[in-house]
Amino acid sequence: MSNIIDGRSLAKKVNQETADMVSELNEQGKNPCLAVIIVGDDQASHRYVRSKHKKAQQLGIKSIVKALPAETTEDELLNILNDYNHDDDIDAILIQSPLPKHINEKYVMSQINPDKDVDGFQVINSGKLFLNEQSNYPVACTPKGVMTMFEEYGIDLKGKKAVVIGRSTIVGRPMAALLINAGAEVTVLNHYANIKEYTLDADIIVSATGKVNTVTESDVKDGVVVIDVGQNVNDEGKLVGDVDYDGIAKKASYITPVPGGVGPMTIATLMRQTVELSKWSDING
Amino acid sequence: MSNIIDGRSLAKKVNQETADMVSELNEQGKNPCLAVIIVGDDQASHRYVRSKHKKAQQLGIKSIVKALPAETTEDELLNILNDYNHDDDIDAILIQSPLPKHINEKYVMSQINPDKDVDGFQVINSGKLFLNEQSNYPVACTPKGVMTMFEEYGIDLKGKKAVVIGRSTIVGRPMAALLINAGAEVTVLNHYANIKEYTLDADIIVSATGKVNTVTESDVKDGVVVIDVGQNVNDEGKLVGDVDYDGIAKKASYITPVPGGVGPMTIATLMRQTVELSKWSDING
Repeated sequence: MSNIIDGRSLAKKVNQETADMVSELNEQGKNPCLAVIIVGDDQASHRYVRSKHKKAQQLGIKSIVKALPAETTEDELLNILNDYNHDDDIDAILIQSPLPKHINEKYVMSQINPDKDVDGFQVINSGKLFLNEQSNYPVACTPKGVMTMFEEYGIDLKGKKAVVIGRSTIVGRPMAALLINAGAEVTVLNHYANIKEYTLDADIIVSATGKVNTVTESDVKDGVVVIDVGQNVNDEGKLVGDVDYDGIAKKASYITPVPGGVGPMTIATLMRQTVELSKWSDING
Repeated sequence: MSNIIDGRSLAKKVNQETADMVSELNEQGKNPCLAVIIVGDDQASHRYVRSKHKKAQQLGIKSIVKALPAETTEDELLNILNDYNHDDDIDAILIQSPLPKHINEKYVMSQINPDKDVDGFQVINSGKLFLNEQSNYPVACTPKGVMTMFEEYGIDLKGKKAVVIGRSTIVGRPMAALLINAGAEVTVLNHYANIKEYTLDADIIVSATGKVNTVTESDVKDGVVVIDVGQNVNDEGKLVGDVDYDGIAKKASYITPVPGGVGPMTIATLMRQTVELSKWSDING
């Protein structure tokens, strides 16, 4: 019988801590500020941006949303980004993906000031994570949120067999690096691997493939910890994760549900990281 | 019965290719140049630097060795480095480790121009490797040399079970990233792991622990490929690797000896990467 890792209630706790950190910083005359740039009319993107804006405001974080028309040129976007990069009042910058096709998204993203890279996607920040540098730098929010789950639920990582399924730059790779840095024995799998050969013996499984039923009951051992990063829509139009929740829940010691698991932690981590960037900007000068 | 991966003869082949690349570049009026900075009197370090100098000269690479006294200050060293960073005639810079204790080695190393980072240790270059960027950047020479071995001996990596033992920033981590990028299913182990649980099923094992007998005959399956990065001195004062060569050779399809395996490939890769940096500096402007 599994313990459910309740992402919603943990996100609330993290958000409360974030709000407290904001109050402390306010007392020091500092107002943490997140700037989000969105280009074009994609409705889903606008919805994400609104929910980030609302959450930031709830926590006392100053939130700037710069909504630009779809016909914005790359140069215009870069000029605005450059202003934000140099604006001492802005601690964190997020450019909502996807950008319109006439803009080189990869290049624009690479121009975010690494000290304000709240998504943690910059090459330099990824390199620090990969090399396990002992300093302050932002880390991709989804895997960082997963680490908070391990911590909160007292799930020990040192020497544990961890399997990460999926090798994306925004989830799989940083997740693997965080687990390696925490002393786990980490296997990184392609989504087409014969999963079972690796998962059957795993203490911890993180699935980030975006494929329904990537991991099923017969793929895991009793007592496994399963973290499901997937957000998929199944045949019945229902939001489900990568793993067979009902089957695995019978065997797992801990499991994250979808929805209500990793998802809420990602945005909570984004908010906390905004405030951390604000704190670090003081420390780093 | 194993095939021995002959690092010495492969290094000769790579060196010949490097010399040919140098000739081509010379014809275009370009003279690849490696600058090595060494501080202090450490005899082993001076020996390494001399062998690099000699090899570079053999291959037609211009070699500058800047030998500085032990009492050189950090500022003096940084000034020289700054000159080299901005000198268009210098393509590759290597600062020989260790530096004297009064110098912050980590900081000085971080100040090498990333485009001249022939060791591939810079955070930005490590980040590109970790994120599998499809552009030209230097990579740590030892694991890059191992990849040349796989290529030369036709050892397929895609979907293969690879185990990397050791998580150092200069061997284990970049080796793991290269294998992940090549499509292998990669496990990264701490040296204290129960190795056998992972190696017994592995298609490819790379050991970089610096501990004699890290992997022995009973730890591997028939047909395994074993790459031994270790350079250890055993009880009889003999240079040996991390793995029990004689035992494993009975079962492995390919194995690298020590000496004569990975070692010669590291310096050959360093030379080739110097020439690559020279070529890339043209392409990148």
